[in-house]
Amino acid sequence: MSTPDNSARIAENFARQGLMQTLGVSIEEVSPGRCVLSMPITPAVSQQQGFAHAGAGFSLADSAAGYAALSLMPDGADVVSVEVKMNMLRPMVGTRLIATGTVLRAGRQITVVRADIEAEDAAGNRKLVGAVQGTMMAVQAGFRDVVNS
Amino acid sequence: MSTPDNSARIAENFARQGLMQTLGVSIEEVSPGRCVLSMPITPAVSQQQGFAHAGAGFSLADSAAGYAALSLMPDGADVVSVEVKMNMLRPMVGTRLIATGTVLRAGRQITVVRADIEAEDAAGNRKLVGAVQGTMMAVQAGFRDVVNS
Amino acid sequence: MSTPDNSARIAENFARQGLMQTLGVSIEEVSPGRCVLSMPITPAVSQQQGFAHAGAGFSLADSAAGYAALSLMPDGADVVSVEVKMNMLRPMVGTRLIATGTVLRAGRQITVVRADIEAEDAAGNRKLVGAVQGTMMAVQAGFRDVVNS
Amino acid sequence: MSTPDNSARIAENFARQGLMQTLGVSIEEVSPGRCVLSMPITPAVSQQQGFAHAGAGFSLADSAAGYAALSLMPDGADVVSVEVKMNMLRPMVGTRLIATGTVLRAGRQITVVRADIEAEDAAGNRKLVGAVQGTMMAVQAGFRDVVNS
Repeated sequence: MSTPDNSARIAENFARQGLMQTLGVSIEEVSPGRCVLSMPITPAVSQQQGFAHAGAGFSLADSAAGYAALSLMPDGADVVSVEVKMNMLRPMVGTRLIATGTVLRAGRQITVVRADIEAEDAAGNRKLVGAVQGTMMAVQAGFRDVVNS
Repeated sequence: MSTPDNSARIAENFARQGLMQTLGVSIEEVSPGRCVLSMPITPAVSQQQGFAHAGAGFSLADSAAGYAALSLMPDGADVVSVEVKMNMLRPMVGTRLIATGTVLRAGRQITVVRADIEAEDAAGNRKLVGAVQGTMMAVQAGFRDVVNS
Repeated sequence: MSTPDNSARIAENFARQGLMQTLGVSIEEVSPGRCVLSMPITPAVSQQQGFAHAGAGFSLADSAAGYAALSLMPDGADVVSVEVKMNMLRPMVGTRLIATGTVLRAGRQITVVRADIEAEDAAGNRKLVGAVQGTMMAVQAGFRDVVNS
Repeated sequence: MSTPDNSARIAENFARQGLMQTLGVSIEEVSPGRCVLSMPITPAVSQQQGFAHAGAGFSLADSAAGYAALSLMPDGADVVSVEVKMNMLRPMVGTRLIATGTVLRAGRQITVVRADIEAEDAAGNRKLVGAVQGTMMAVQAGFRDVVNS
């Protein structure tokens, strides 16, 4: 279950992700098996056509999906990405991106996740711009090696 | 063929990718069907364990693979990511990441790409930390929509 | 819109897929943007532990997703797979597999699809065993080359 | 190391994969971290245009990659697919398909694999038609659950 402690655990973990601060990402919501993050679309995260870069959308979705997975893991666990795949559905244009990570299947070691990435315009309208599917793995705090842990 | 003009085209395109500047990425090499980019590993691109974030490695590899694809496209074309998948092989630790994008199959509309991501330590030793495979699409300059173009 | 003609078009197309007959696949349902296929789980589609082979589940899901995409394409179009990714959530055990293909985003050339694979036991209970995400492409009848068409 | 015992272990395991027999697959080669399988292209494995079905190529590559992974696992281990992704590069046409599975990174639990799929014509010429990247997991013999093992 996600408890206040669980949300606090994720907020503390998130605060240590330097990339999330660099990209201006905020936590919108955490509940068991679900995490929503948002990021402003600015020139600092753009690709050459002025859209948000695929890598910016991916970063947001990877963290959202990872925290969705972590929200169902026991205390003392941390999470790492094993593999993540993103399809681009539309250009990532608007005022901000919102990624909603959800858990398809939580296992003891491996958790299968999805994340939907929406772009929101100035009027608050949202469109689905990216679809993410991947695998997260539980590791112990102090983890140093994805594959050989 | 990649000509000096081709390298110039990619350098000009790269300079418009705000995310690449935010992440401190440099072009190391461009040749026909191949592009190498590097990024320093700093706290600004970290995840919670102090490694480079999966999204930082992905951003680097996505651009490297995209420019590998663009290097084989005709003048007047630009490139967008259709879908990209990354497997994490080891934690992204060291002084910098190097992504080498290559083209598996260049088509008129769709180009299939791979990128290897290596982490380099202070002594210059490199380890493979990520493996990327994806699809890029040629679009006209001024492109505004991935799917309906 | 999926019309009776559309369903007929998909049934005719499906009948030409030799692999579907080899694997004993049946069409359960076709509607606009959606196709459901089923396959009995028998020793003929097994892997070494007696479960359905990942490749059997993939084949089912690839066709379901492809026909979901085709159901939204104009007359005279045919469909090919550009790339497909499958996560295994649980062993594929039971009496049959059911794959439900849906369209996330239909474009003129490229359609992004998902498919869920469920395993059904003798009592009719279903569990999600696989999650598929991929890209389909519209081609003309008589198509002979995925990338250079 | 792959020893005669290792090759024998894989041959025995392969013989229990009913799908491989249904599709007419043969083992061409097994060495440490590598496995080559072949399959005749016949109407029994076709899609609607007469090419080999994506699912046939995937099945071949998934087994080749899985056995490449298994070849580096200790005695008493078996292998299951966690996730596999395939890009189609060209139509799968010719007399047979050959899939070469290789290991990118072998870990204690998780092994990252690639497989190249080639189509061979009657004259013995080969073209790359598919590129596969995925994750395999070591399990104990008697394994019954991918995620919760």
